[in-house]
Amino acid sequence: MDGDATRQAEAWLEAFEAALGRRDVAGAVGLFEEPGYWRDLVAFTWNIRTMEGRAEIASLLHATLAATRPMSWRLDGPATMAGGILEAWLVFETAVGRGRGHVRLRDGRCWTLLTALVELKGFEEPRGRTRPKGIEHGGFKGRQSWLERKEHDEATFGHERQPYCLIVGGGQGGLGLGARLKRLGVPTLIVDALARPGDAWRRRYRSLCLHDPVWYDHMPYLPFPDHWPVFTPKDKMGDWLEAYCRVMELNYWPSTRCRSATYDAAAGEWTVVVEREGAPVTLKPKQLVLATGMSGVPLTPVFPGAETFAGTQHHSSAHPGGAAFRGKTCVVIGSNNSAHDIAADLWEHDAHVTMVQRSPTLVVRSESLMTLATGRLYSEEALAAGITTEKADFIAASVPFRLQPAMQRPIFERILEQDKAFYDRLRTSGFMLEFADHAGLSAMYMRRGSGYYIDVGASEMIMDGRIALKAGVEVKGIEPRAVVLSDGSALDADLIVYATGYGSMNGWAAQLISQAVADKVGKCWGLGSGTKGDPGPWEGELRNMWKPTRQEALWFHGGNLMQSRFFSQFLALQLKARFEAIPTPVHDLAEVHHRA
Amino acid sequence: MDGDATRQAEAWLEAFEAALGRRDVAGAVGLFEEPGYWRDLVAFTWNIRTMEGRAEIASLLHATLAATRPMSWRLDGPATMAGGILEAWLVFETAVGRGRGHVRLRDGRCWTLLTALVELKGFEEPRGRTRPKGIEHGGFKGRQSWLERKEHDEATFGHERQPYCLIVGGGQGGLGLGARLKRLGVPTLIVDALARPGDAWRRRYRSLCLHDPVWYDHMPYLPFPDHWPVFTPKDKMGDWLEAYCRVMELNYWPSTRCRSATYDAAAGEWTVVVEREGAPVTLKPKQLVLATGMSGVPLTPVFPGAETFAGTQHHSSAHPGGAAFRGKTCVVIGSNNSAHDIAADLWEHDAHVTMVQRSPTLVVRSESLMTLATGRLYSEEALAAGITTEKADFIAASVPFRLQPAMQRPIFERILEQDKAFYDRLRTSGFMLEFADHAGLSAMYMRRGSGYYIDVGASEMIMDGRIALKAGVEVKGIEPRAVVLSDGSALDADLIVYATGYGSMNGWAAQLISQAVADKVGKCWGLGSGTKGDPGPWEGELRNMWKPTRQEALWFHGGNLMQSRFFSQFLALQLKARFEAIPTPVHDLAEVHHRA
Repeated sequence: MDGDATRQAEAWLEAFEAALGRRDVAGAVGLFEEPGYWRDLVAFTWNIRTMEGRAEIASLLHATLAATRPMSWRLDGPATMAGGILEAWLVFETAVGRGRGHVRLRDGRCWTLLTALVELKGFEEPRGRTRPKGIEHGGFKGRQSWLERKEHDEATFGHERQPYCLIVGGGQGGLGLGARLKRLGVPTLIVDALARPGDAWRRRYRSLCLHDPVWYDHMPYLPFPDHWPVFTPKDKMGDWLEAYCRVMELNYWPSTRCRSATYDAAAGEWTVVVEREGAPVTLKPKQLVLATGMSGVPLTPVFPGAETFAGTQHHSSAHPGGAAFRGKTCVVIGSNNSAHDIAADLWEHDAHVTMVQRSPTLVVRSESLMTLATGRLYSEEALAAGITTEKADFIAASVPFRLQPAMQRPIFERILEQDKAFYDRLRTSGFMLEFADHAGLSAMYMRRGSGYYIDVGASEMIMDGRIALKAGVEVKGIEPRAVVLSDGSALDADLIVYATGYGSMNGWAAQLISQAVADKVGKCWGLGSGTKGDPGPWEGELRNMWKPTRQEALWFHGGNLMQSRFFSQFLALQLKARFEAIPTPVHDLAEVHHRA
Repeated sequence: MDGDATRQAEAWLEAFEAALGRRDVAGAVGLFEEPGYWRDLVAFTWNIRTMEGRAEIASLLHATLAATRPMSWRLDGPATMAGGILEAWLVFETAVGRGRGHVRLRDGRCWTLLTALVELKGFEEPRGRTRPKGIEHGGFKGRQSWLERKEHDEATFGHERQPYCLIVGGGQGGLGLGARLKRLGVPTLIVDALARPGDAWRRRYRSLCLHDPVWYDHMPYLPFPDHWPVFTPKDKMGDWLEAYCRVMELNYWPSTRCRSATYDAAAGEWTVVVEREGAPVTLKPKQLVLATGMSGVPLTPVFPGAETFAGTQHHSSAHPGGAAFRGKTCVVIGSNNSAHDIAADLWEHDAHVTMVQRSPTLVVRSESLMTLATGRLYSEEALAAGITTEKADFIAASVPFRLQPAMQRPIFERILEQDKAFYDRLRTSGFMLEFADHAGLSAMYMRRGSGYYIDVGASEMIMDGRIALKAGVEVKGIEPRAVVLSDGSALDADLIVYATGYGSMNGWAAQLISQAVADKVGKCWGLGSGTKGDPGPWEGELRNMWKPTRQEALWFHGGNLMQSRFFSQFLALQLKARFEAIPTPVHDLAEVHHRA
């Protein structure tokens, strides 16, 4: 059966390679279904792009085949067949690199193809057999020790020697990308406003743990040891990132704020002024990466009368935890992850807390998400079945965004069925649920980066009244001691937490560079699904993430730990290619449809 | 062929299990050659012990069979046959634990057997599927966050709560053992005199890199990433250990010196007074582990007139590096690793340096050692052949010390042959070579822990005169500006480095506890091979290392990174068993034949 599948896959691949080899675009396109999907991560497009349907695939091939020169396609392991769908892993080469791919065939035609650049020829990462020796044996006058070289490097980098790449933001995104660029030999500086790597985690509300399980969260190159807890507490994550920065030998400037950035297109160079521990330093990188968190700038609505409030009010990102609010009356405005976590923590600290839910929320129990959704790819069971983290990432990437809702729906419907009693009780408590066309939590995340709660216990607290709920209302105004709602009622308040979310990442570009550049690159994140919070037109990929933008030499990096891990490799390869002056013709740079 | 070998191994194992099952000691012993060897790591003996010959094996079984109740023996993977020797991996259980083993059969009889305890039933390390969740989902009043729990633990540990185990010395040995005890849930405190974990490495001479290659050097649980250099520079190692201490959440008191330790046998408790950042703290651990470096206290011979020396003189362990001695005339007394490294570093800093070689030295080129010796088990090639670090450690442990010279000899003779020109030239330069009955460098290390140089370039510098050599002489005395030698000559000197080695580890016990206790436990390290520096009688295992000593509740831990990694698991299990009050009857506690 699998031998058969492998032969079928080989036959398709041979035909595909032959068509590409003779530049027969029509022939190649004819090997796809209509619509078939081809997702390319940098290998053909120097972009992150999904071609949907034969016309877009033909246009890709016309534009890129000559320069890409794909070759040496072969299966990487046996193909498998299930439910009429044949799946196979591929490897291939291009003129400049090596790639990895995945194909789904139905009745002999390609339904989905993934192609991903994983290595540049001649610029492979030194590892295993090619790792450095660490010392040059023999006697050499003037030899520098590792420490001396490191100290010299740290003293001169950013002054006598300029970084090729400047990463603003030293969270998991900036650190993981920095580690990849370090291994690729691209001179890179990471700057972060806070005092220590990991502080962005340490500063969050005290009860925070990662919402994704450990198998999903590994950093590049240095996986967590196998006793690491399923849900990493925020301060432990901070310590891990701090250690990671150190042992990966990243050039990292803490306590450094970006003050301005301007791009000189003629010189192909940024001028970035940073304030490093109070003193201004001017940097001249060729590439600028914003890795300041995919969530962007905190959004705090200003309700009428807010300035008259006599208690404490702050955005969820500034909330320190419940300890300071013991016995106080608290109102949390919002109903997503942070709102739930903060409300539960306040209750645990003997505060009286009411959650104001303004619009329906997608709730999924953490346990269900783990066992039925992420667990298929990221769990001990998946590992035991040979699905390594790397493999899981590629499997996840092999499904084009257009097909994800249909693929996720059966999983989500199983969750709805299994947790029916839970949802019924939650609905009965007055909580407004939404199910996002049953496409699941990951679809919601890709579309809006918000709108959901991964339930780790607060839903039960809403159901049993430990957290009071006021749902289906808007905030009309703030009084010195109360939040006034659209139904005319008022909630007493000593504390107001605005768990009201974040703007688009290009808000950072507006702050750091200019509104003009922010508008030029447009909104980050979101697919253009035409669903709430994600207006069309359809884009097929996340806007502006990990790929070229309308502003030359400006890049956005971020996302959850899995995305940061996986996509940092493609962003790193794009930067490395530019560093080495390898031609990187970008296919089909996305249009800007939304400013923010 | 291998199927055949597997059947043979199974047959032997069945017969062995049956004999043990019916307590048929004679029958079991009859399954061994005469002499056959049985090395046991804690599983039967609660000791580290090699039984040599049928009489010792019979005595082991008479003493331990009833309590150990070995069972469920089975092969772990197929057996292999090569050169008439059948090898197979085993697993088994005892009354209290699970074990791993290895057997070599010749003509159906057992030549060597290894049995090792790897896990205590009911006290397995939480990992993988059994890892902690990291957060308790739900709402709980008074919940402590990870950070709060950690901070509380750090504030009270050693004061309100006593460690069960105190480890003195926070180098790779103390940290790796600490990490294992942490996973096993044994309350453990590590104290170290220096300011930061890793400082013991950072303080060594500037040019130092690990002499063993990276594959040999992994710490438990958290292997180096695959770009790590082959030979880790000392400061990089320091940073790794510091990060390790942090992410493993070890209780570690830096800047803490041990002032005294006394054991109360009736209470089964130590009283250890430490000075923590200047303030005395009294600790009451049940177990005390000295992990202060297997090399023991630095040995500095006091030559007549040393007190009149007008320049700088210090032991190699206190040597800062060559930078301060530019243009100076330097004498290095000694001809082992440190002497060579320090001499080369001085030359690199434009010093004039003479090495005084008092006795012959075993020299092996690092490259040859890697490719022909350690590389068989620890290298990319070994990894590609399925020999993981863990497997390599067990393979290395499967050869009884008595048989190691014979097994190492062909390897070492191949090195001698391949590097003949090198040795000839080195001999011609006047350097006194010794080859330690061709048993190789590891034998020398086990016997004396010294006496060798792993050549990373300094031998060439001796041959071409960059490092001057004065061989075959003793030091007769020191004058204000010179070292006077036994042949009547004198060497001008601004600097004298005493690369004269270290005493036995029980010297630490003398310093910390008392000379009486140091004498009671006797010398550490060495096999009793009857070769130079390792007087008999034959012991069969390293003296006092990682196993019970003649002083109750006093343990010695140390060795190179491989030994620290491998043996820390058996030491940790011995401590855990005592912590859980599992009976640990020690079989055949070693006699003390040498005081130091």
